[in-house]
Amino acid sequence: MFESAELGHKIDKATYDAEVPKLREALLDAQFDLGEKAKFPVIILIGGLDGAGRGETVNLINEWMDPRFIDTHGMGEPSDEEMERPMMWRFWRALPPKGKIGVFLGSWYTWPILNRARGLINSAELVQSLERAKRLEKMLADEGALLIKFWLHLSKDKQEERLKLLEKNPKTRWRVTKRDWNNYKRYDKFLTIHETVIRHTSTAEAPWIVVEGADARYRSLTVGKVILESIRKRLAEVDQKKERAIRAAPLLPPIDNLSILKTLDLTQKLDKRKFSAALEKYQGKLALLSRDPRFKEITVLTVFEGNDAAGKGGSIRRITGAVDARQYQVVPIAAPTEEERAQPYLWRFWRNLPRKGRITIFDRSWYGRVLVERVEKFCAEADWMRAYLEINDFEAQLVRHKIVVVKFWLAISKEEQLRRFEERKQTGFKRFKITDDDWRNREKWEDYEQAICDMVDRTSTGDAPWTLVEANDKYFARIKVLKTLCQRIESAMNTVELK
Amino acid sequence: MFESAELGHKIDKATYDAEVPKLREALLDAQFDLGEKAKFPVIILIGGLDGAGRGETVNLINEWMDPRFIDTHGMGEPSDEEMERPMMWRFWRALPPKGKIGVFLGSWYTWPILNRARGLINSAELVQSLERAKRLEKMLADEGALLIKFWLHLSKDKQEERLKLLEKNPKTRWRVTKRDWNNYKRYDKFLTIHETVIRHTSTAEAPWIVVEGADARYRSLTVGKVILESIRKRLAEVDQKKERAIRAAPLLPPIDNLSILKTLDLTQKLDKRKFSAALEKYQGKLALLSRDPRFKEITVLTVFEGNDAAGKGGSIRRITGAVDARQYQVVPIAAPTEEERAQPYLWRFWRNLPRKGRITIFDRSWYGRVLVERVEKFCAEADWMRAYLEINDFEAQLVRHKIVVVKFWLAISKEEQLRRFEERKQTGFKRFKITDDDWRNREKWEDYEQAICDMVDRTSTGDAPWTLVEANDKYFARIKVLKTLCQRIESAMNTVELK
Repeated sequence: MFESAELGHKIDKATYDAEVPKLREALLDAQFDLGEKAKFPVIILIGGLDGAGRGETVNLINEWMDPRFIDTHGMGEPSDEEMERPMMWRFWRALPPKGKIGVFLGSWYTWPILNRARGLINSAELVQSLERAKRLEKMLADEGALLIKFWLHLSKDKQEERLKLLEKNPKTRWRVTKRDWNNYKRYDKFLTIHETVIRHTSTAEAPWIVVEGADARYRSLTVGKVILESIRKRLAEVDQKKERAIRAAPLLPPIDNLSILKTLDLTQKLDKRKFSAALEKYQGKLALLSRDPRFKEITVLTVFEGNDAAGKGGSIRRITGAVDARQYQVVPIAAPTEEERAQPYLWRFWRNLPRKGRITIFDRSWYGRVLVERVEKFCAEADWMRAYLEINDFEAQLVRHKIVVVKFWLAISKEEQLRRFEERKQTGFKRFKITDDDWRNREKWEDYEQAICDMVDRTSTGDAPWTLVEANDKYFARIKVLKTLCQRIESAMNTVELK
Repeated sequence: MFESAELGHKIDKATYDAEVPKLREALLDAQFDLGEKAKFPVIILIGGLDGAGRGETVNLINEWMDPRFIDTHGMGEPSDEEMERPMMWRFWRALPPKGKIGVFLGSWYTWPILNRARGLINSAELVQSLERAKRLEKMLADEGALLIKFWLHLSKDKQEERLKLLEKNPKTRWRVTKRDWNNYKRYDKFLTIHETVIRHTSTAEAPWIVVEGADARYRSLTVGKVILESIRKRLAEVDQKKERAIRAAPLLPPIDNLSILKTLDLTQKLDKRKFSAALEKYQGKLALLSRDPRFKEITVLTVFEGNDAAGKGGSIRRITGAVDARQYQVVPIAAPTEEERAQPYLWRFWRNLPRKGRITIFDRSWYGRVLVERVEKFCAEADWMRAYLEINDFEAQLVRHKIVVVKFWLAISKEEQLRRFEERKQTGFKRFKITDDDWRNREKWEDYEQAICDMVDRTSTGDAPWTLVEANDKYFARIKVLKTLCQRIESAMNTVELK
């Protein structure tokens, strides 16, 4: 795997000096076009061996290009705010927007490699981590990001040679520590891990570019040229604007017309007296749960989706009414802002992930991708088709970080919706205004119904299941929501061990 | 000061039950208009005594209004990311955008009050903190924010009564801790401090609304009505769009036409050989400084302003070339994004403040307010006039937090600018394109000159001085920049004591 990177590649000074000025001009030119078009971000990962020139390469990129449009991230120890979120949060918050370049010296590969080297995970777990990294990169690439992954390599002999040379010179002797020699001794061990990494995660979207690191001139010119050609190629592609074809089987409605939504018993009801009693009971329970010391150790993420006028707002208020206002945050999802549009669609949800001991309630969510964006054709079939997998990956990361993901679909019948629309027309309250959009959505009732069923089938998982809420009766719906939420929080809290 | 809030205000249940539904409807209505117009944010501070119903009030606001458009902030212990920035950073990151409501239970008053009660600051220092808070609030108000500050009060007798009542009931006994009785004993001490706070910070823009907290119904109705009327009044004002008048004396150019810019000796030069030697020297020095262990304890914030084509980019690259890319961040300031436009103009600079041990370089900055925005009349005279004070306050906060603020004005002559413009026309490099804006700015050379002189006069302070850089000769300019930066970092580092 590293054969070509142990050949002793070298570039002489004359060639280097002749090539560099042209390369730098071309890089600046490409960077200018990148910024002007602002159609995609560039994510550069610099991995590889100690001493193979990773730090130098990062500085080189900043020197050769315009550092005003490059963000460089060392990714050392995570801060406490980062520790309270899933591992990937710190990368999401550091992603460059379209038109900019992000250079990452530590990446999502760093911890899997170190953990494997320390024996904290076995080889199957390493591969599992790598598969996750691969899916993340595929998603970024599908969202348009240009990923350039460099792996800087040194042969064992070159590594030894380098350390001895540094030690010989009194001026550089301090740079060689015991840790360096220890790492050297474990060279073969690391090599095996690195091979696994390169093999599993060199994909069509984001192949590793292995570069021999021993000769600085060779390394620098190679890195510079790869970056230049990658950006140029992608800029040319962007101009062509090809529609991505999808080869997947189309999602068809069940041929007997029996769907999960049709099996819901929407006639279920609760009378006002029973509702009041149950509301008191479950709000009281939720209040106690959220004040339990173990609650500080978990995070709750609640998603509300549902037909227009299904009563999402009312259900949300029954939750917030029971919890201290400092503990929750409601995130209403409307059209994305300019900054959000310059990022992958999941970015705005990552940025709203709460710290521990809190409840975040999304009023509509990332499921817009497979609902409104699918039905209204705001994105291509290929885009919403891949979203099921991306969303499952996203939620799996949350669940692994002990975040309780509670998802509600509030279902009402087409007739009930009409009744509520008409009712709203009568009230004077502006906030209950029915818009043209609402009526338009209603015309596509069947398309939405299929999208909802596909969503439930494809994203209801053991750890992050959908709860379908029969919402023709508001009382019944609100209690079902509260009860489900309490159960989910309770069972998550039972797994918490207080120190 | 608290006389009216010790009268034993009470509202009977019948009145309350009759008033609340109307009030809630009206609040929801006002909140809807607030969001629809999205012209200003609402910042609600809830201060006051323990047991006077602060937590209840926060929850009430969320219950009566739509919690989806309210962000509630408890502001407990700061995180490590917050500790590494000036105290106000955590409030800036929590400010609501236009159209939304932010409720703060802890505020910029919390720490001054506690520190004074603990004897950590004397009364003069308390007043100084309050003056800062006042200036912050004035700025927020001038930027359009609606500030509503509630102070919930309880008389000493009522406080005692409340604690005894809680202790008597076995179900609530646990709520009374030793700390509560200790605070009760220090009631008079706290009262004196609170009086000082209310007196100094009840301003025309943001008066404290003192509310007796003993009776929940009285308190709730009062708070609700104040919020409603405040929002309604401001919404009406927004519709009128009155131009703010300014009564200040106009800023005139010096009558003898002698200005600080005219005193610069722009003929200063460095030949290439001397430049190379000096560049090596100062870049080497900067490299050493930034790798010094004491550097981890400081933060450096560099501002580059200057005439178009004065060579800001080139000077910045000479800095970044000497520092590890993981330690610096360059922030190019272009037109604000949608999210930035929904916030006070300083918000986007606060959001880019670095953690410790880093250098942030602003390529253009908050000074746009008193330069381009003034000259091009993008903001009213009243707005840029107040900006000098606001900017000085902002920088003073940075300096108090041991941030080294280094500000450069790169000055070239009108003739030199023309020469560079013509030269750029010749080169093929797109990134050096001269835009129509550049030519237009040039026509207003004299207006800009006055704005620059006023800026230097009004914002060059002992702690955050302007360095005027004679930049007709690029070599000379780059060395002056590097040398100044090294000096400033060095003298800041000399005050750092390593643990």
